Amino acid sequence: MELLHGGNIYDENLNTEDGAPLLDFSANINPLGMPDSVRRAVCGALDLAHNYPDPLCRKLRAALSEEYDLPAEYFLCGNGGADLIYRLAYALRPGKALLTAPTFAEYEEALKQTGTDFCFYEMQKDFVVREDILTQMDASVDVMFLCNPNNPTGLLVDENLLLRILEKARQCGIRLVLDECFLDFTGQPERSLVSYAEKYPHLLILKSFTKMYAMPGLRLGYCICPDQELLSRMAAAGQCWGVSVPASEAGIAALKEKEYTQRAIRLVRKERIFLKSELEKLGFEVWDGQADYLFFRAPGVHDLYERLLPQRILIRRCANYRGLDDTYYRAAVKNHEENERLMQAIASVV
Amino acid sequence: MELLHGGNIYDENLNTEDGAPLLDFSANINPLGMPDSVRRAVCGALDLAHNYPDPLCRKLRAALSEEYDLPAEYFLCGNGGADLIYRLAYALRPGKALLTAPTFAEYEEALKQTGTDFCFYEMQKDFVVREDILTQMDASVDVMFLCNPNNPTGLLVDENLLLRILEKARQCGIRLVLDECFLDFTGQPERSLVSYAEKYPHLLILKSFTKMYAMPGLRLGYCICPDQELLSRMAAAGQCWGVSVPASEAGIAALKEKEYTQRAIRLVRKERIFLKSELEKLGFEVWDGQADYLFFRAPGVHDLYERLLPQRILIRRCANYRGLDDTYYRAAVKNHEENERLMQAIASVV
Repeated sequence: MELLHGGNIYDENLNTEDGAPLLDFSANINPLGMPDSVRRAVCGALDLAHNYPDPLCRKLRAALSEEYDLPAEYFLCGNGGADLIYRLAYALRPGKALLTAPTFAEYEEALKQTGTDFCFYEMQKDFVVREDILTQMDASVDVMFLCNPNNPTGLLVDENLLLRILEKARQCGIRLVLDECFLDFTGQPERSLVSYAEKYPHLLILKSFTKMYAMPGLRLGYCICPDQELLSRMAAAGQCWGVSVPASEAGIAALKEKEYTQRAIRLVRKERIFLKSELEKLGFEVWDGQADYLFFRAPGVHDLYERLLPQRILIRRCANYRGLDDTYYRAAVKNHEENERLMQAIASVV
Repeated sequence: MELLHGGNIYDENLNTEDGAPLLDFSANINPLGMPDSVRRAVCGALDLAHNYPDPLCRKLRAALSEEYDLPAEYFLCGNGGADLIYRLAYALRPGKALLTAPTFAEYEEALKQTGTDFCFYEMQKDFVVREDILTQMDASVDVMFLCNPNNPTGLLVDENLLLRILEKARQCGIRLVLDECFLDFTGQPERSLVSYAEKYPHLLILKSFTKMYAMPGLRLGYCICPDQELLSRMAAAGQCWGVSVPASEAGIAALKEKEYTQRAIRLVRKERIFLKSELEKLGFEVWDGQADYLFFRAPGVHDLYERLLPQRILIRRCANYRGLDDTYYRAAVKNHEENERLMQAIASVV
């Protein structure tokens, strides 16, 4: 298996017995760590986990329904957002998909399994989605994936353009999959299209607990879509017990963490500004990412990842993203002390 | 979503506020409950779960490799055994599948997703697999599923016949999927075909942590197969982070529980004999199941499930198994007190 993503902290070469702990900037996880209430919910779930999970995730979907003020029927939960991406691919079996490039690799990986043809909206050097994407949207396209804010760039799609994309997708009969997994970190909830879900049944919004609640290891994601028939097919495209009991209980606890999410948004905003400015001081080109990570280019530096390894620091090499070369990198925004360590380490090797 | 399986303890009608706790005989879980070491491992995993899981499950596969004395490359882990059944279906996309009937419904459910044609070996009234199954195995069959001991009957396939099936599958180029998820409970480890894995690359054996370690809610299963190319395709047929961090840590802890599994086998054997004898006293036809559940027929009683509900006891109605009608039932073997409660309840309603 080729390891496509960040967070590969398990590599044997990185885990020698005498190695110091790794500082992982390659996965984008809330620097506040997992809330205590979520940890307690996981341990508490042990008294329930001798039972199979509820295939219908009734408790968790009721909590989501309350959170979003949308019918519980609009929600499908999965074993992380990635589970839902594969289920969606199998449920749709699209003939043709429109993807942006660069973006999260899992869309393309999942659609490879269904023999889907791809067309790519290749973003130019500034990695901004522009109006010309509308010209690639026609009736030959079955599904379109849009990540907002995008991974790895952290850039948000212009609000007006996003609504035009939504409308054009409806006109052309294109299923629009909008991945908002990192949107919470932008502190701009008004940029979400969740409020359009009721009126746009061709819109499916992907959401995750992973990033905001620092629980990637627990595996929990969900999607929001009013199209009951599609959600049924997605449910049937994999096992009925996909969401574990601890993940479900963790999710229910996480949704109550209002103050924690606000604190995380404030911390990430402040530290993102700090990191961006520090990276720019080194002559790197840094994009104006709005999520809990920053995307940058280190001109002429093809091995920043390797140079940081001896200091036990991992960043995300972006060369395996479509359209990027090995001078592009992504780094998570962590807490101030960790961000300072990253910057000292980078400064010492370039 | 149609709920096909036992363990539906979440039904709103069953969970009124004034209801006593449910006694669930519809799911077949080790009556000793989850080992303490597994519970501790799940809580301990919280210190790791802010990381993504290892896509390669290296620690868990190393533990399995040691347990079975087989190369780690032979193991693929999944989000429960059911996850692996779907991955297998998507990886194989078989044109034609041979299934026994009745058996675990998930094989057929998964293969429906791949448009597979089915043929069924319909077991006669005694539900024994006989030699004539060999006549249904020919080169037109791509994959064959065999559950040993079978669900819902608990019956083991005759040892010699099983080896003839294995050999015939090789001759005909049939992928043989042998589901041994309940085999540990038989106390007859020699009935496993794991030792044949090295020499029979067309054999894939499904195993689960769910039943023996009473952890269905944590979701962890694995398969054993020497065919690296197939395992790679199964890995690619779904997300790379399928196994959660708590599940992985639970599995590693569970594999050390040797005394516990022996105790469970002894308890289940003793209680199975008790339950079988009690059910027979009521005039029921009870099969000689070897697992942690018993399959029986209550002639003329079409509503035993409904009659037991007011006593807050769930059994498995088997009418939705292919070839069975509503006088067939399955009940888990639990601890003595619980089994006595079941028998008192049944005696009071028939």
